[in-house]
Amino acid sequence: MSLNLARRSGLVMQSDIRLMSIECARIGGINLSQGVCDTPAPPVVLQGAADALMQGGNIYTHHTGIRELRQVIAGKQQRFTGVMFDADREIVVSAGATGAMYCAFQALLNRGDEVIVFEPFYGYHVSTLRAVEAAPVFVPLDPSDGWSFRIDDLEAVVTPKTRAILINTPANPSGKVFSRDELALLAEFAIRHELFVFTDEMYEHFVFDGLSHVSMAALPGMRERTITISGLSKTFSITGWRIGYALCDARWASAIGYFNDLFYVCAPSPLQAGVTAGLRELGDEYYLGLSAEYEAKRDLFCKALVQAGLQPHIPQGAYYVLADTERLPGATARERAMHILHATGVASVPGSAFYHDGGGENLVRFCFAKEEPVLAEACERLLKLS
Amino acid sequence: MSLNLARRSGLVMQSDIRLMSIECARIGGINLSQGVCDTPAPPVVLQGAADALMQGGNIYTHHTGIRELRQVIAGKQQRFTGVMFDADREIVVSAGATGAMYCAFQALLNRGDEVIVFEPFYGYHVSTLRAVEAAPVFVPLDPSDGWSFRIDDLEAVVTPKTRAILINTPANPSGKVFSRDELALLAEFAIRHELFVFTDEMYEHFVFDGLSHVSMAALPGMRERTITISGLSKTFSITGWRIGYALCDARWASAIGYFNDLFYVCAPSPLQAGVTAGLRELGDEYYLGLSAEYEAKRDLFCKALVQAGLQPHIPQGAYYVLADTERLPGATARERAMHILHATGVASVPGSAFYHDGGGENLVRFCFAKEEPVLAEACERLLKLS
Repeated sequence: MSLNLARRSGLVMQSDIRLMSIECARIGGINLSQGVCDTPAPPVVLQGAADALMQGGNIYTHHTGIRELRQVIAGKQQRFTGVMFDADREIVVSAGATGAMYCAFQALLNRGDEVIVFEPFYGYHVSTLRAVEAAPVFVPLDPSDGWSFRIDDLEAVVTPKTRAILINTPANPSGKVFSRDELALLAEFAIRHELFVFTDEMYEHFVFDGLSHVSMAALPGMRERTITISGLSKTFSITGWRIGYALCDARWASAIGYFNDLFYVCAPSPLQAGVTAGLRELGDEYYLGLSAEYEAKRDLFCKALVQAGLQPHIPQGAYYVLADTERLPGATARERAMHILHATGVASVPGSAFYHDGGGENLVRFCFAKEEPVLAEACERLLKLS
Repeated sequence: MSLNLARRSGLVMQSDIRLMSIECARIGGINLSQGVCDTPAPPVVLQGAADALMQGGNIYTHHTGIRELRQVIAGKQQRFTGVMFDADREIVVSAGATGAMYCAFQALLNRGDEVIVFEPFYGYHVSTLRAVEAAPVFVPLDPSDGWSFRIDDLEAVVTPKTRAILINTPANPSGKVFSRDELALLAEFAIRHELFVFTDEMYEHFVFDGLSHVSMAALPGMRERTITISGLSKTFSITGWRIGYALCDARWASAIGYFNDLFYVCAPSPLQAGVTAGLRELGDEYYLGLSAEYEAKRDLFCKALVQAGLQPHIPQGAYYVLADTERLPGATARERAMHILHATGVASVPGSAFYHDGGGENLVRFCFAKEEPVLAEACERLLKLS
């Protein structure tokens, strides 16, 4: 008897993050490594879940989610992006955006299909592609030019096996917010090469400096080929609830729903009810307020990074920041992240976790989705490096 | 652009169940098709989840679950089966038993591996095997002899590719409770052929007629090769919570945990806390009481089936019953289940949903996990067939 080693090869991306969390807990540090987001959830969301629990909403729901939840998701999506989705045929509520993405890959990718991924990337995206035996093909974002990309770099990697582009906007870990012009370039490319676009828009309500989040499905000709993935884990600070969703044309949604049924059965039912209550009751000012709140956290934290001599790549969105570590001792990103942890008690993620092959060694990623006193304490501690 | 049809072939097992549920809802019938279990959950479980929600237990947990949950699972498993598992290294809490089983298959099965499955089977087991591109190989249970099997039938299907046996005890849909002698036969077989045993023991606390549930891992030599899957969905009537687990040797558990992290991140955190409270607070009498409660439901419902002329295969455990439909009009199990639904307003599942190739056409499955007034009404309605 032995493990299935074939399936496990290359699937170790998360180990650096876990390692830092474990070491951080051991020394009692402040954990800015994982995107845990320990800010409080809106009371209406919590009460909605508690009420559902107590009133018997504990059995299986429809495999694509509670109907009212799909309806309020459709409403919010239309208000914020202008794109309409049919709550009955084009929305699949899954166990987190992770579940929605996995089901979308299962439904739409064949073994050996190539998917263009921007680097630095979110490790789960790449691990999940590999889990369905698709091949990520990497295109670099340029850190010295606001994480820009060159469409020529995408053209250069296209083969007959290329089946999709994966976008994450706002992006983890870079904080890049893809502009409408950039998305238009990618849209033209996707249409010309007959590609799907998987777009992870989990951080859609965390956008700074007056920028706007643009949803790929809103671009002309893109709705039919775009699978939009999002969820409430970050927006409502409920990362442990596992409620996310996929929005797309009904042709794809029914297949995504099939796999969601098979692997997830349904998203946790009373928590679906809590999210429904939140989406129904919270006004648009709640979502708009998030950007202002997190922009202040970003400014506070990036200022501390500058003072500490860890030059930040100022993020335009999401709630992570990549910082340069070249002046720190250590040969690798892991050694430098460990140095920061031991010198200051603040945990980060080595930048190499976001690159496939030797990149990111001069970067670490911090998550600034923390309550203000914790973030202030982390800023204070980082000054020990200066 | 097109669907990934390769992955989807053969994965349509659940459609019969869904079809019946939809038609049942349309005509306002009593749905005894899905194993929904609408009996109330223990208050301590609900309160534990509500408290966790309100007190901030809404972020990611460890990918194998809250430590205290793993500890109370280990305690209950030892009390009821005599088998000890290390809470830190041998237990993976997942998104339902479905999640635990899927991760176990991902971790331990290679493409093309053959897995022996008893027929009639639970559709998700077969669909999930096919989803990892393993091949189910079917061995019949004999309905005319208490769902017995012949070890010669297992010997006949063994090939060099055979990698595991899948057991479900108490079984869905047959209600078979594998005896210690039967498990010993299978254990000897598994050891001789170097096989894993996946054992789904979700219905472990639903055992009738003074029989005992025996856990495969308790048999000599079996702990190291057995992956025990169970959960609280049925025991606590919380099918929508998605809390299940895998128990096994640490060698396998770490790989299962890897896939659990990748596909599920973690089981829903406040609901883990509710289950923890239930396992901590409820005495063994709670679990023992379930068998008496459901034996009474079984007796009530099977008596009605006899009166209705639908001869039941009296189940020894779980909460389903297969009934013969030969005297009803219709050429297939689906037509007969539809006849029952339209004549009485009671939905069942066509027996063909539990056989891979033409079997089960004279059977339908009813779920009797319903509150007493609903079950009594269903019994009354079924008499219209007599």
